[in-house]
Amino acid sequence: MRIIGLDPGLRLTGWGVIDVQGNHLRFVACGVVKTDTGLGLAQRLVHIHQGLVAVIGDRRPDEAAVEETFVNRNPASALKLGQARGVVMLAAAEAGLAVAEYPPNVIKKSVVGAGHAAKQQVQMMVRMLLPGIGETPMGADAADALATAICHAHHRGAMARIKEAVS
Amino acid sequence: MRIIGLDPGLRLTGWGVIDVQGNHLRFVACGVVKTDTGLGLAQRLVHIHQGLVAVIGDRRPDEAAVEETFVNRNPASALKLGQARGVVMLAAAEAGLAVAEYPPNVIKKSVVGAGHAAKQQVQMMVRMLLPGIGETPMGADAADALATAICHAHHRGAMARIKEAVS
Repeated sequence: MRIIGLDPGLRLTGWGVIDVQGNHLRFVACGVVKTDTGLGLAQRLVHIHQGLVAVIGDRRPDEAAVEETFVNRNPASALKLGQARGVVMLAAAEAGLAVAEYPPNVIKKSVVGAGHAAKQQVQMMVRMLLPGIGETPMGADAADALATAICHAHHRGAMARIKEAVS
Repeated sequence: MRIIGLDPGLRLTGWGVIDVQGNHLRFVACGVVKTDTGLGLAQRLVHIHQGLVAVIGDRRPDEAAVEETFVNRNPASALKLGQARGVVMLAAAEAGLAVAEYPPNVIKKSVVGAGHAAKQQVQMMVRMLLPGIGETPMGADAADALATAICHAHHRGAMARIKEAVS
């Protein structure tokens, strides 16, 4: 079972892929799709989309998870982020992946045990939770994407256990 | 010279295609891509994208124009609209079209002569400005998309005349 976590942004979109076997997680790959601020908006959206189509084609995840955007900020930023988020979710859904969404505090809680955490804490815990990651360089966006994938792995497991208990 | 105007929305995305020859405009087609509110967000974005890819493939416009989103509203709406707008702009840019953006008041001004106008006024003026449209049914979203295309036709013409005068 392979999960891709996605952290959308117009300038930097983080992605992180993990494998899940029962309770065991394993790092596969992570990175960012970066767009040139000098390009027009439409071209930047094309780059984000193409970048993720390539990553999904390479890594062949089974499911996708995206951070629900925190919208308690100014509308102009929300619009910008929304545009990036739209093409990110499109890339996953077009590839036939179910796309789960998790609020930021749920994601943080599933990696650091609390709903609020500094970027460094998230990075450190992601590294501890993912065997195989070693010293792979990982920026804040890739770490957030991996945290989203870890969160989805936990929640999927809980759902499976509930279904099993009920049946 | 063929222009597609686009009015993005998560539930309804209006589109309108016109032909431009010098100062003469002509209606080609218009419509909406409607998404089912019962579907998940990612699937709705896929439908919007697929719908516009089909329209662009059928009508083969040379350039695209999109309404710049009015962001003086709540961030949650801006995010939603942004997601739809992202996949709309992507569909046009992927097809190799340049994507121009115009603020709502500039679009309204180019069809009704004022920056503020009721939806009905826009619909009426779009019908008057576009020979060939006849009694073609046209909702508010399709009318806004056609108004955006008309706005682009005017601004392109002005740019061409300026270039000519300078050279």
